[in-house]
Amino acid sequence: MTTQELIAQIKKKKSFLCIGLDVDLEKIPKHLLNDEDPIFAFNKAIIDATHNLCVAYKPNTAFYEAYGLKGWRALEKTVNYLNEKHPEIFTIADAKRGDIGNTSTRYAKAFFEDLGFDSVTVAPYMGRDSVEPFLAFENKHTILLALTSNEGAFDFQTKLVDGKSLYNQVLETSKAWKNAKNLMYVVGATKAEYFKDIRKIIPDAFLLVPGVGAQGGNLQDVCKYGLNAQIGLLVNSSRGIIYASEGVDFAQAAATKAEALQQEMAAILS
Amino acid sequence: MTTQELIAQIKKKKSFLCIGLDVDLEKIPKHLLNDEDPIFAFNKAIIDATHNLCVAYKPNTAFYEAYGLKGWRALEKTVNYLNEKHPEIFTIADAKRGDIGNTSTRYAKAFFEDLGFDSVTVAPYMGRDSVEPFLAFENKHTILLALTSNEGAFDFQTKLVDGKSLYNQVLETSKAWKNAKNLMYVVGATKAEYFKDIRKIIPDAFLLVPGVGAQGGNLQDVCKYGLNAQIGLLVNSSRGIIYASEGVDFAQAAATKAEALQQEMAAILS
Repeated sequence: MTTQELIAQIKKKKSFLCIGLDVDLEKIPKHLLNDEDPIFAFNKAIIDATHNLCVAYKPNTAFYEAYGLKGWRALEKTVNYLNEKHPEIFTIADAKRGDIGNTSTRYAKAFFEDLGFDSVTVAPYMGRDSVEPFLAFENKHTILLALTSNEGAFDFQTKLVDGKSLYNQVLETSKAWKNAKNLMYVVGATKAEYFKDIRKIIPDAFLLVPGVGAQGGNLQDVCKYGLNAQIGLLVNSSRGIIYASEGVDFAQAAATKAEALQQEMAAILS
Repeated sequence: MTTQELIAQIKKKKSFLCIGLDVDLEKIPKHLLNDEDPIFAFNKAIIDATHNLCVAYKPNTAFYEAYGLKGWRALEKTVNYLNEKHPEIFTIADAKRGDIGNTSTRYAKAFFEDLGFDSVTVAPYMGRDSVEPFLAFENKHTILLALTSNEGAFDFQTKLVDGKSLYNQVLETSKAWKNAKNLMYVVGATKAEYFKDIRKIIPDAFLLVPGVGAQGGNLQDVCKYGLNAQIGLLVNSSRGIIYASEGVDFAQAAATKAEALQQEMAAILS
């Protein structure tokens, strides 16, 4: 998917909501556990109920790997379902991968070609040659971790390197990498006060913003400094939406939560 | 596996060799492609031929994920085979994972409990709460990326943070994390001159050292500064061993290459 297609979808739906599909069999409604594939059954119901309210879905691969082959199959089925039924929706493999060049190429092929995701999250620690193999894929997007939403972000990411924080160095340095136009960045909603400075470095890039909802981030704060002329934001909520109810009404409850966020976004965009 | 069991194995075998099982279907001998599971058939033959010469095997998960369900199944079969036939051998999932706390717990369970690996490699960028969930597992080992073997290591890892390089900050900071005794570190063989300073910070920890062989690192240089009283090194070779021959003699050729390294290690240890 091109960035222009993503922007067109955002404008049409008046939403820049991304829904995180972090499926935990201990949290999904009990009646689904009798299904042949409870993980996919849960995802399908959530997608069917929310696809008009969001522009992206983001399965975190950890939740699927935790269930071994069964989990990996459910991940495949989920992205296939999205690509077939809702090809306009942007798909994000939240995998936080990154390795030496020939190995990163393997990961890129796995997520972009075999699984058919539009984008994948990548960790920057190993530098240019660990990220450029992902950037080489046309109309695919590499979402680099910059400033994450967790407490541990302060261990290294905000430490000063040559007078600038490490995450700022990541932003600056990565702009010079080959095919940098295919970069987006993860910036946590719990650190909204940082968005102003981040936008000075990367005014045009899309930011994937986790941490709204369960982690305590605030949508208004994020938008105040994070929005740009092409919107430039994908705001993610996972647990706050998908686990809104443990009953048979779980999908409708998720849609209600998603709609509340979408309405808030529509008001901000207008 | 406890660290003491690993050390005992090293002393018994006079080897601190780790063999990287990075299986690429385009590089394995053609006759294996007719096998029902070529990836596992290749790994099994390599393990059968080399298990007396090495103390650890390290499948890089990227190579398995690249083949989807088929690859994931081959990874499961490989680690199961090792755990059943050679329980004394240390197994490393080279996965370079790391995520916010509740998600890292998922990865830790996937690799330590479901797949049954002894250890997993983890990226430090997200800090303490992304790593401690891995450290919570008793007699399991978390191998943190410190100074990697690739060119991109110079992009961020060697940059100065408060007067010390970032990778030194990672070493220092991680020592204070809960259950830090379960930490090992990745330090690339291509940067042997750095080992002396690294040993000042972490004299006792085991180092997993990639980059000998195909990437150009030198075993003598690594050992000169990297060895400690409890050996403290696992030196990995992947392509240099497993792709020693494309013929039907591939496993024997791999054993010959592994034995050459083992002999060199035995001489260093004596």
